[in-house]
Amino acid sequence: MKSKTMNKAMMIDFYELTMANGYFESGKKDQIAYFDLYYRKNPDNGGYALFSGLESMIDFIDNLAFNDDDIAFLKSKNAFSDAFLEYLRDFKFTGDVYGFKEGSVIFPNEPIITIKAPIIEAQILETYLLQVLNHQTLIATKASRIKYSSGDKIVLEMGARRAHGLTSSLNGARAAYIGGVDATSNVLSDQVYGVPSGGTMAHSWVQMFDSEYEAFKTYANIYPYQSTFLVDTYDTLSIGVPNAIKVIKEVLLPKDVKSFSIRIDSGDLTYLSKEARKMLDKAGLENCTITVSNSLDEKIIKDLLIQGAKIDIFGVGERLITAKSDPVFGSVYKLVAIEEDGKIIPKIKRSDNVEKITTPHFKSVYRITDEEGRFEADLVTLNDEEIKSKAPLTIFDPNNIWKQKTFENYTLKIMQEIIYKQGKRVYDLPTLKEVKAYAKEQLNALWPEVRRFDNPHQYYVDLSRGLWTVKNEMLENIKDES
Amino acid sequence: MKSKTMNKAMMIDFYELTMANGYFESGKKDQIAYFDLYYRKNPDNGGYALFSGLESMIDFIDNLAFNDDDIAFLKSKNAFSDAFLEYLRDFKFTGDVYGFKEGSVIFPNEPIITIKAPIIEAQILETYLLQVLNHQTLIATKASRIKYSSGDKIVLEMGARRAHGLTSSLNGARAAYIGGVDATSNVLSDQVYGVPSGGTMAHSWVQMFDSEYEAFKTYANIYPYQSTFLVDTYDTLSIGVPNAIKVIKEVLLPKDVKSFSIRIDSGDLTYLSKEARKMLDKAGLENCTITVSNSLDEKIIKDLLIQGAKIDIFGVGERLITAKSDPVFGSVYKLVAIEEDGKIIPKIKRSDNVEKITTPHFKSVYRITDEEGRFEADLVTLNDEEIKSKAPLTIFDPNNIWKQKTFENYTLKIMQEIIYKQGKRVYDLPTLKEVKAYAKEQLNALWPEVRRFDNPHQYYVDLSRGLWTVKNEMLENIKDES
Repeated sequence: MKSKTMNKAMMIDFYELTMANGYFESGKKDQIAYFDLYYRKNPDNGGYALFSGLESMIDFIDNLAFNDDDIAFLKSKNAFSDAFLEYLRDFKFTGDVYGFKEGSVIFPNEPIITIKAPIIEAQILETYLLQVLNHQTLIATKASRIKYSSGDKIVLEMGARRAHGLTSSLNGARAAYIGGVDATSNVLSDQVYGVPSGGTMAHSWVQMFDSEYEAFKTYANIYPYQSTFLVDTYDTLSIGVPNAIKVIKEVLLPKDVKSFSIRIDSGDLTYLSKEARKMLDKAGLENCTITVSNSLDEKIIKDLLIQGAKIDIFGVGERLITAKSDPVFGSVYKLVAIEEDGKIIPKIKRSDNVEKITTPHFKSVYRITDEEGRFEADLVTLNDEEIKSKAPLTIFDPNNIWKQKTFENYTLKIMQEIIYKQGKRVYDLPTLKEVKAYAKEQLNALWPEVRRFDNPHQYYVDLSRGLWTVKNEMLENIKDES
Repeated sequence: MKSKTMNKAMMIDFYELTMANGYFESGKKDQIAYFDLYYRKNPDNGGYALFSGLESMIDFIDNLAFNDDDIAFLKSKNAFSDAFLEYLRDFKFTGDVYGFKEGSVIFPNEPIITIKAPIIEAQILETYLLQVLNHQTLIATKASRIKYSSGDKIVLEMGARRAHGLTSSLNGARAAYIGGVDATSNVLSDQVYGVPSGGTMAHSWVQMFDSEYEAFKTYANIYPYQSTFLVDTYDTLSIGVPNAIKVIKEVLLPKDVKSFSIRIDSGDLTYLSKEARKMLDKAGLENCTITVSNSLDEKIIKDLLIQGAKIDIFGVGERLITAKSDPVFGSVYKLVAIEEDGKIIPKIKRSDNVEKITTPHFKSVYRITDEEGRFEADLVTLNDEEIKSKAPLTIFDPNNIWKQKTFENYTLKIMQEIIYKQGKRVYDLPTLKEVKAYAKEQLNALWPEVRRFDNPHQYYVDLSRGLWTVKNEMLENIKDES
């Protein structure tokens, strides 16, 4: 390795620094800019995403600084002025940050995070914020889908060996827990974040003994209260399950142990779990649970349960920790306004891809909830726009403005909280358990039509009349500006 | 956060520790075990994989230790004996490690890494080794495919914002460089590993100025020798390209600058690049290169080039850094033998999934190369088996033994090198540039039939007669053993 230094501030796209130096050199560095972090498409063509990564973002901003090694390295690139490098050495974030709470359900094209800061600072935050929020939201969303498909069964995250490196596994396990997973195999995620961890045996344990029976018996003697017997090393039904039954009867029942499990990691999980269930029940072990694993995801779990598989615990690995079916969460970070002489000037980016057009201006997001607490729609407004929360509220589809909907009985909640005010953090981090409980509440407030996997209802994210007008006027006037 | 501790040794599946404690408690901890790390299926249904991650593995083993915080945390789980925790506190790896060189092309079902160590130590290595080797091999392989599709064009890795956390991006950029990518946007990967980094401007830079023209001009003045103008903020052909041409003529040509580029990040890249090329050429700027980006991968790049797109540089983001089309590389780590009284006893795992059956015993891997240096086949043998490198060599398909092939003129190379001998590292790390050059050599030694994307030739990985016999006898005798 060239360097042992590892400062998160340096996990940055090079162009953030060329631009920052450029703002510095062109006298623009202190101009106030507004950036929105938002995404365009739900993972897996689903109906929502589950926001995660806020704690990592805050940890980053709280500690953001460049050290001497970093400055020396950047100097060696011959791209930055000495004055700029001195600026970086004293870097401190001084802006405002607004954001959704971690564990919120979120939807495309609404600002999840809004940054108001001198342009040079806002630019330096971009890469890392996108990285942690994209990654953790991706995994939390996937976990929420897997947990949803599992109904009341237990779901374990066990993908460390197929994760994309340490942070993929560490923060992925935390995000999965927020999304609804019950525990992880990942010891580090327990140590660092308090995600409950556990685990029992692999095939190697079974192979290390002269027989499977001896392997199970030795394990049961050492861990009588945490026994899960992996029954597919040689043959699940003819060898594995009979050995497990024998050891449970010989070792665990005499100690009055009430809780034990078998795990099936290969083969036809529906057939094997049904047959194993019969064998266990016939042996009087109705309380022995059945755990399965082997490339599971929400669709396979749903199928297994529809087919009547007798499964109590799902161990989910590679397809959760990599979000295999759709592994890219595409949040972007776009300039939406600047300030000139204390006045906010909205900014827009048109694009040859219509979906890449930005919505300009400093904005707010309101969630409209019905009398029963279900989420009906989100409304994006100009930040200083007054929304009357008592009168009937009519919203319209920004792309088809004749499609309207009026709410009579509803509550409005503003979704972004203030997290930093002039560089000072004014937001206290909730505990992980609180985030998990909040996520559960949020998910439960979605209509089942939004949660289903195939062709979910497209939740409304509409623009207020004022914001819609600003955006469309700007789009028409681009030719004049550039 | 619950803890600030972050020790890679704790990036471990819980069951490695329950098993390790179990071996400790049952008196088995010092029994010598052999584990093979291998994979079963090439990514993207391709014909090979490109091995990466060895340096991370070595860095891990060199520094593997548990600290007081770790021991205190593990004690709090109430699953481990005090004697075992004391053992962990003094943990030191004492085994042998054999492995392919980083940058080797590798194939399914051959041992890439072989560990010979006391079972307790071998088990503690498992999770982290799989994690880093799976991740980095995945990305190196994907990068090699993308570079292959690009022919002689330049390919840049710029996926930091969509990576699965810091290590996904940091080590992914390094693996991509080994796989053939020319540079990265990731500053940290340059600082830590020396992967060349670079970057210029985002849309926000363009939007920060009163006009695109002014934005380009300011940039060109600050970075005359590193100018790439992002031309799609408002409209690529009617606004962006004309502004770039104007600024190149007004600012760069008078300074005698010879190298500059435009970047197109949206829209129809074939059409836009062709039109932009015409406009640039007409302006006398034949030397202005065209860079494109926007969710590219090997298949899109191939299509663009077939359609005659005028592109010099490909910026590849999310689909490389997450290996989007197939984001799981599934190496496994399986017990293949133990030692008893100094004698090697092969071990096997049968499975209800045929492809999950292991190949037992301590083995060697030979690569058979033809007179022109092309790789013809790999042969897996018993470690102590003698292979005559001068006589005609007949190999056979282990699943269809009547399918045979005889080589007359060939060279044999043993692929695993010894990396640790009794816990001491005996292998010097090559530089990153050496690894990259070796990978290029290896890739060039593949038949094009193996490299193509659709239905590639299935490279032969055969078992020697001796190894095949051991495996099949063990499979037949399983019932007696368990």
